[in-house]
Amino acid sequence: MGKDRVEAFSDGVIAILITIMVLEMKVPHGETLDTLVAVVPVFLSYVLSFVYLGIYWNNHHHMLHTCRHATGPMLWANLHLLFWLSLIPFATGWMGENHFAPAPAALYGVVLLMAAIAYMILQQVIIASQGRDSLLKKAVGGDWKGRLSPVLYAVAIPLAFRSQWLSLGLYVFVALLWLIPDRRIENVLRSTER
Amino acid sequence: MGKDRVEAFSDGVIAILITIMVLEMKVPHGETLDTLVAVVPVFLSYVLSFVYLGIYWNNHHHMLHTCRHATGPMLWANLHLLFWLSLIPFATGWMGENHFAPAPAALYGVVLLMAAIAYMILQQVIIASQGRDSLLKKAVGGDWKGRLSPVLYAVAIPLAFRSQWLSLGLYVFVALLWLIPDRRIENVLRSTER
Amino acid sequence: MGKDRVEAFSDGVIAILITIMVLEMKVPHGETLDTLVAVVPVFLSYVLSFVYLGIYWNNHHHMLHTCRHATGPMLWANLHLLFWLSLIPFATGWMGENHFAPAPAALYGVVLLMAAIAYMILQQVIIASQGRDSLLKKAVGGDWKGRLSPVLYAVAIPLAFRSQWLSLGLYVFVALLWLIPDRRIENVLRSTER
Amino acid sequence: MGKDRVEAFSDGVIAILITIMVLEMKVPHGETLDTLVAVVPVFLSYVLSFVYLGIYWNNHHHMLHTCRHATGPMLWANLHLLFWLSLIPFATGWMGENHFAPAPAALYGVVLLMAAIAYMILQQVIIASQGRDSLLKKAVGGDWKGRLSPVLYAVAIPLAFRSQWLSLGLYVFVALLWLIPDRRIENVLRSTER
Repeated sequence: MGKDRVEAFSDGVIAILITIMVLEMKVPHGETLDTLVAVVPVFLSYVLSFVYLGIYWNNHHHMLHTCRHATGPMLWANLHLLFWLSLIPFATGWMGENHFAPAPAALYGVVLLMAAIAYMILQQVIIASQGRDSLLKKAVGGDWKGRLSPVLYAVAIPLAFRSQWLSLGLYVFVALLWLIPDRRIENVLRSTER
Repeated sequence: MGKDRVEAFSDGVIAILITIMVLEMKVPHGETLDTLVAVVPVFLSYVLSFVYLGIYWNNHHHMLHTCRHATGPMLWANLHLLFWLSLIPFATGWMGENHFAPAPAALYGVVLLMAAIAYMILQQVIIASQGRDSLLKKAVGGDWKGRLSPVLYAVAIPLAFRSQWLSLGLYVFVALLWLIPDRRIENVLRSTER
Repeated sequence: MGKDRVEAFSDGVIAILITIMVLEMKVPHGETLDTLVAVVPVFLSYVLSFVYLGIYWNNHHHMLHTCRHATGPMLWANLHLLFWLSLIPFATGWMGENHFAPAPAALYGVVLLMAAIAYMILQQVIIASQGRDSLLKKAVGGDWKGRLSPVLYAVAIPLAFRSQWLSLGLYVFVALLWLIPDRRIENVLRSTER
Repeated sequence: MGKDRVEAFSDGVIAILITIMVLEMKVPHGETLDTLVAVVPVFLSYVLSFVYLGIYWNNHHHMLHTCRHATGPMLWANLHLLFWLSLIPFATGWMGENHFAPAPAALYGVVLLMAAIAYMILQQVIIASQGRDSLLKKAVGGDWKGRLSPVLYAVAIPLAFRSQWLSLGLYVFVALLWLIPDRRIENVLRSTER
């Protein structure tokens, strides 16, 4: 079975999430620049989630590039990932509306954690389907980023009730970690083509 | 005529439905975890509908895999299926907002029943277009799941006015029935490739 | 230049329009079947627009099938068509909310008329780009449906201020006219392949 | 790495933006044509943004046509462009709701300016990835439109606080500038194919 529709469907869902999330930023009532200031914290939380969804789309793009076929379990592991990603706008909205209060900041971490776990499951399902010479397995290698991220989310969740700013700092830190270009998969693919 | 745009359009519609449905879960006013508890029943009804839309996308993916060309009747049978699927968020929202009251639980069953019938019509249209050696016909075979599901929905609709929990149990049961991987189409395709 | 992205973009826009239009049907407050009755007229107007958007997608699918390349003017003629189609949900909503009052019924006709004209422009742009042996020109032939539809819309618009029901009857009539499968393009394509 | 998913994802995001923006035009309460008059200024601001998003989709379509592969930096430069484009509906809504007041008219220019800069960055990233014989570099050549547009936006932003109508005139002027078909890329591509 081809993987084209899995990519197309995932692209569709992530494109809708990333777009509508920004669209949900409500237009302020009032025509002065002051009214715009109130939107700034909401705007910043959307920027963070935009970057996170961008990272997921980017990594998903690379991951699916290593496989040629889509299996039944892969379809469901992918839907499972999309489900948790689809909760990001909800968590973002709750966090933004309550100016980064502890409970919303913790929930944001829970959603990020579940999405990270869902991503790891999808990765394992693809590796298992590729058998011994799995291209993806070689590509992710030690995968320290993939392993560190859920640990940091798990630390950030209870931490939010102590200091939500430390939690948010961890979320931003993990995002920056992934923004640094990840050439692992590209490198393995390139060396295979030779 | 190619079937690419039928797949692309269906992917688009289902991706929008599955995503926006979760987005419609309103952010609660209040920053404590208690306010989140009120969202739980709504959340659960969305999970059920997410799974149902996932099942339809999955089966649709497999079904269209067996055919190479799209005919006029197939385009309309597909739009008819998408129409009923597009009512799932409405039925989900009404059911969630009224905490699984009898009438909304019955309407949810009506939409599922109509979608199941629309799916069967699309299946028959494709089989008819493939002629005698229809790959899809071989693949679905006895199709006990496809035949049992509408019967169970038809039972669940009047049952909702007696006990909506029994109806909901039936909806969950049918969903689980389909979640068990359906290797029929994959098997036939694989044996054909040999 | 390929036409793939024109198709993908149009599929995306029409998929969003057709889906979100139905999603805009608001969940009624109240858990009895009576509350559902109030939604029926709104529902019916959405069904009509769903069918219209389905017809446009269908015809668009067939029309682009006859051409291999996308030119600059074609891209803009296509965007122009999508612009008028994107006003269908607005016109549908205004008509549904006001229970088919004269002015909204007339506006609905205006949007249908402009979309029909935009479709004809796109058709002419494609025919012009294909030159003498235009496959599309052969396919549409006399095109009595394409010519009759805008005339009927133009009649229906002023008629709405006399009797909106006659106008609505005309809109339904034109939709049924197009629902009857249009084998013209399919036939020409088939005879070309031989 | 293929560029298909970059195109598909961008098409998805722009299709959602362009469609939902028009959908956000609220249905007026009241069934007479007078109630429609109040929507006209909002409608006009949506038309302007529809044209702008159409121009971006069009140019994006041409630009990606010159490259065969998607690199990591290209994915992020593209996401960066999509981010600023996703703010166009927000700026449009704020401007429309406040009847083209100075601050909203200035913000509209800021978003256009940032999108134009993001587009230039994406263009440079693609040219850099193509190396010496960059097809895109030849195609854009002097690129006076691409260089003039951000200058005019930068002029229009402070000007809005003097006269928002002059600013709006500049926005309309730049849009018309791009609407004039840009055959540069098409020409270079054509001459290469020979």
